[in-house]
Amino acid sequence: MKHHNNPNEFQDLGLGTRTTGRGERMLNQDGSFNVDRRGLKYFEEKGIYHWLISMRWSRFVLLLFSGYVVINFLFAWLYMIAGTNNLDGMTAVTFGGRFMEAFFFSSQTLTTVGYGRLNPAGMWSNIIAAVESLAGLMTLALATGILYGRFSRPSAKILFSHNALISPYKDITALMFRIANQRSNQLIELEASISFSFLNKHDRSHREFRNLVLERSKINFFPTTWTIVHPIDDDSPLRNFKKQSDFLEHEAEVIILLKAFDDTFSQTVYNRSSYRAEEIVFGAKFDIIFGQNDKGIVTVDLHRINEYNEVKLPDYVYEETEKEMAKA
Amino acid sequence: MKHHNNPNEFQDLGLGTRTTGRGERMLNQDGSFNVDRRGLKYFEEKGIYHWLISMRWSRFVLLLFSGYVVINFLFAWLYMIAGTNNLDGMTAVTFGGRFMEAFFFSSQTLTTVGYGRLNPAGMWSNIIAAVESLAGLMTLALATGILYGRFSRPSAKILFSHNALISPYKDITALMFRIANQRSNQLIELEASISFSFLNKHDRSHREFRNLVLERSKINFFPTTWTIVHPIDDDSPLRNFKKQSDFLEHEAEVIILLKAFDDTFSQTVYNRSSYRAEEIVFGAKFDIIFGQNDKGIVTVDLHRINEYNEVKLPDYVYEETEKEMAKA
Amino acid sequence: MKHHNNPNEFQDLGLGTRTTGRGERMLNQDGSFNVDRRGLKYFEEKGIYHWLISMRWSRFVLLLFSGYVVINFLFAWLYMIAGTNNLDGMTAVTFGGRFMEAFFFSSQTLTTVGYGRLNPAGMWSNIIAAVESLAGLMTLALATGILYGRFSRPSAKILFSHNALISPYKDITALMFRIANQRSNQLIELEASISFSFLNKHDRSHREFRNLVLERSKINFFPTTWTIVHPIDDDSPLRNFKKQSDFLEHEAEVIILLKAFDDTFSQTVYNRSSYRAEEIVFGAKFDIIFGQNDKGIVTVDLHRINEYNEVKLPDYVYEETEKEMAKA
Amino acid sequence: MKHHNNPNEFQDLGLGTRTTGRGERMLNQDGSFNVDRRGLKYFEEKGIYHWLISMRWSRFVLLLFSGYVVINFLFAWLYMIAGTNNLDGMTAVTFGGRFMEAFFFSSQTLTTVGYGRLNPAGMWSNIIAAVESLAGLMTLALATGILYGRFSRPSAKILFSHNALISPYKDITALMFRIANQRSNQLIELEASISFSFLNKHDRSHREFRNLVLERSKINFFPTTWTIVHPIDDDSPLRNFKKQSDFLEHEAEVIILLKAFDDTFSQTVYNRSSYRAEEIVFGAKFDIIFGQNDKGIVTVDLHRINEYNEVKLPDYVYEETEKEMAKA
Repeated sequence: MKHHNNPNEFQDLGLGTRTTGRGERMLNQDGSFNVDRRGLKYFEEKGIYHWLISMRWSRFVLLLFSGYVVINFLFAWLYMIAGTNNLDGMTAVTFGGRFMEAFFFSSQTLTTVGYGRLNPAGMWSNIIAAVESLAGLMTLALATGILYGRFSRPSAKILFSHNALISPYKDITALMFRIANQRSNQLIELEASISFSFLNKHDRSHREFRNLVLERSKINFFPTTWTIVHPIDDDSPLRNFKKQSDFLEHEAEVIILLKAFDDTFSQTVYNRSSYRAEEIVFGAKFDIIFGQNDKGIVTVDLHRINEYNEVKLPDYVYEETEKEMAKA
Repeated sequence: MKHHNNPNEFQDLGLGTRTTGRGERMLNQDGSFNVDRRGLKYFEEKGIYHWLISMRWSRFVLLLFSGYVVINFLFAWLYMIAGTNNLDGMTAVTFGGRFMEAFFFSSQTLTTVGYGRLNPAGMWSNIIAAVESLAGLMTLALATGILYGRFSRPSAKILFSHNALISPYKDITALMFRIANQRSNQLIELEASISFSFLNKHDRSHREFRNLVLERSKINFFPTTWTIVHPIDDDSPLRNFKKQSDFLEHEAEVIILLKAFDDTFSQTVYNRSSYRAEEIVFGAKFDIIFGQNDKGIVTVDLHRINEYNEVKLPDYVYEETEKEMAKA
Repeated sequence: MKHHNNPNEFQDLGLGTRTTGRGERMLNQDGSFNVDRRGLKYFEEKGIYHWLISMRWSRFVLLLFSGYVVINFLFAWLYMIAGTNNLDGMTAVTFGGRFMEAFFFSSQTLTTVGYGRLNPAGMWSNIIAAVESLAGLMTLALATGILYGRFSRPSAKILFSHNALISPYKDITALMFRIANQRSNQLIELEASISFSFLNKHDRSHREFRNLVLERSKINFFPTTWTIVHPIDDDSPLRNFKKQSDFLEHEAEVIILLKAFDDTFSQTVYNRSSYRAEEIVFGAKFDIIFGQNDKGIVTVDLHRINEYNEVKLPDYVYEETEKEMAKA
Repeated sequence: MKHHNNPNEFQDLGLGTRTTGRGERMLNQDGSFNVDRRGLKYFEEKGIYHWLISMRWSRFVLLLFSGYVVINFLFAWLYMIAGTNNLDGMTAVTFGGRFMEAFFFSSQTLTTVGYGRLNPAGMWSNIIAAVESLAGLMTLALATGILYGRFSRPSAKILFSHNALISPYKDITALMFRIANQRSNQLIELEASISFSFLNKHDRSHREFRNLVLERSKINFFPTTWTIVHPIDDDSPLRNFKKQSDFLEHEAEVIILLKAFDDTFSQTVYNRSSYRAEEIVFGAKFDIIFGQNDKGIVTVDLHRINEYNEVKLPDYVYEETEKEMAKA
């Protein structure tokens, strides 16, 4: 008596089992999930590094410059407290002018430019400057590290065909979609893992998940395109989805996880995407987008990745499906 | 005649086979093990990098500043030995004043601020300054590298339900616990590997280890929660643990290893934890913590991750277990 | 009724299924593919990081210095606009001389050398200098990060025998080629994955791909050489390629993917290469290139990696193949 | 008719098939192999990064300082050629004195200290200084990157028992050796892969290799020790090695590859070692080195990792082996 490993049983794919409500998609186009996580405080959820590395560039640059101004402002106060006569070379006489000079002296110390017209003469200003230059080096090292981390963060840019198709395949049908590497670098050992999600026929508040078996789930190289194919055979969870409206009615969604080794970054990269019911085209076939250029080299027109022709699906597929349903 | 691969034989999980004594847990909450390693010297055990990267932040900052002071102190002596008349721009006349100026000149050289009011004029002070600025750059590069290494060190923050439950599962029972990603970043291809440890019935100084087979040991995505389920079937090492006191008596501990790919750090991360006998609740079921917000989006209340209800376990499970024991 | 996993069916290896035309090889010696990708704009294809990390060294250095000149030029204009009387210590009187001084002052600020003879005195030049030193630190941190990234980018340098051989192997034949690690560092857990590509017999515009089963596809260590062997048995896609001209006629190509862990870089590295029909030698055997030096240590002469002797292939192999073809 | 995957056939483990001559071990204690690679030039073998990252620390520091002196020497010449009257603030009058000042000015520019007493006044010295400060930043960034790369290079330090033992194991015998993590950091998912190498009985110039099947080849955690066990059953390549002299006569060597995830470095690490015939003890059993301290915590005395007791091996093992040999 085994109670596990039945592939058609309930599968907890880590996506929960609730509906997303009024037809919202589960997986957004940017790879984030449509889930409202509650009960944790902001900084419990966001580690500081996660926060810095994933914020928008405009925010990051703003944060960097504000931090720079604030730190210089604070150190300027410390130099004022230590006494401006301790700062050699100061020329201003008003309080505001002196503060401004202290502020710029601080920025020269923090960035280790140290022109030297202004320089610390007394003990206290020397101590503050010594601490500031060390702290500045450390803080700016963190800032530059994060800047470079943001810049060199590996990511796979994959072009997906806008639609997934239900196409004829051998003597049955198959779910197909087409992908290409948007970047000209090489992705090696590309693996695909596809899940199918739909509302339970009887309890529409319950969402079910199935893995889809692929004709081929891994390729070694990826210089052109790859058509990912799930044959809709008797074991497929899609065997009873016989027309577009079946997908719509069950709020079906095809969820895709791609994994590859990026030859430029020398790192493993992931990419995720999904197709919703509306994006599945029933009875269509992708166009061939390969050609040949003047030099006899194979060309591939990535602009046409989504182009397809409508085709009639084989009748007997439906008959078979109906017979099978009669038996069940 | 095969002598290996019998899953119910003795398994050396690398945890030793001795008891931890008076009810101490083997795996602490911080992921360290309750083992007293002896026979090695401190720095044989701790590589210098390991030591620097894993010490507390307060200690690290203290060490950094003390190192800075010590190095400047040493170089200040060297400048004093080379003669302070070799340092252009010095104004102090007392020994203490001159030493202080040399000290701050050293700090300006080490951090490459180099204001220049003080500057090396003679050959020896020039040589010392040239060496110091290079050594300073190298040392501070190490310091900033370690600082950034500490800061960007990947780690998975996983919320575990406080208790593991023995719940009804199909027509039998199962050991279940619930986890969530504390961070809002994505963990991909999360894998769980669970071991069960208990004192040998006959020789209580001997600790045994078994792997627990899971209903599902890997999920692709982890945006909400995952309930990890070990079905207690006829092959389960838990099949004879029929009440809370059985777990307590054998000082049982469930040891968990999680592995995932962190999408932010682009690296593999691990997390470990354990449940002790006291933390296992017999006859309970986790509450559903999914809901729906105003916009129809699924919500998950991570605050309630440990909430469960007591439930009655099916009678026939016990009967079956008893029959089986009678046979054995 | 299964529709997948038949290893001799059509295999989409991500390489497309078109011919490369007039005998061009698919996989170039530098690991790039002979494909003309169209329909994307230049910077859609090239991420900026990919572009910077994979350009030629000469270009990278040129870009670095031009960028440096351009940035200093721009900041020099800003200092001119702010007024050169705001730059303390300027000695030039002509416009050109002042611009040149502003230019060099900018370079001293950007690199944080900050000699200080020239230094900002007014508010505006101070603000520009404060911004420039921060921006300079950030920009140069990116530049140095990319420089180091280029320098430390892991790559496996593998020596391949110039030819792949069809050699006698047990009572049949096998496709063999020999590789060695060009570097003296260790490659660990080296894995090989080999594909065979040829034009379809009936439709010569269609290219087919097969995986080749290896006698051994993984080795733990790689200190000397490894002869990779595909036995041409009844299941081999090469079983009907009985003479050199068969390979030529079908524009056959053997495509190789190697994967290993580099012990020096502590990272996974990949290497790819291919043998075309002309590079396959029919009826030959690699020479033994092992010897022994004065101290009794095994020697391996990597210079001779491609040396082979012609040998007669067993007759009955052909007979068998013919019989089989008669049956089909 | 299959020609592959017979585990007892010839196995090319990438180690060649020649003897190492007069009893030299194949795998040295430092993880390097006893092979004399010939036919490649020095820098074909050694990539520059490999060379810099794996040289001894003393050499690296020496190289760093020599490079610093050489670069400053070269730039000093350039400043001399540009004319020392272009360097503001120079005080020396002799050629040697001026050269020395130019040398130190160069070092101040290269490290971006830039005190400023000496500073470039003419166009040419300004251009040289601008180039030097940029080149200096880049070069020192490489140097510091390599320095940090050397420092933070992950490596597993594993304690191996000095001897491998042939011990009683159930009703047969087994080859056993014991390992521990020398560092106090955690190694996760430790995997062992063991090969056995010996001279061919009939052709002593030919070395054979076999994989050894382990009782358990992977552990999740490694806080104490792990005894790696190869049961010598009827399929074991060690089944005919019945006494110490059999190992010696065939120059046997047990070659070990360990792989783990280092929790501190967040990276995969490898370790390799070997046992030669002399290091295999026939008829012995490892002592238990676990204890308990005052607080009831398990202790493990890593100092005693190699301690073993001689034990008699079961007689019938030999009888069985003899019967089997009679049959063969």
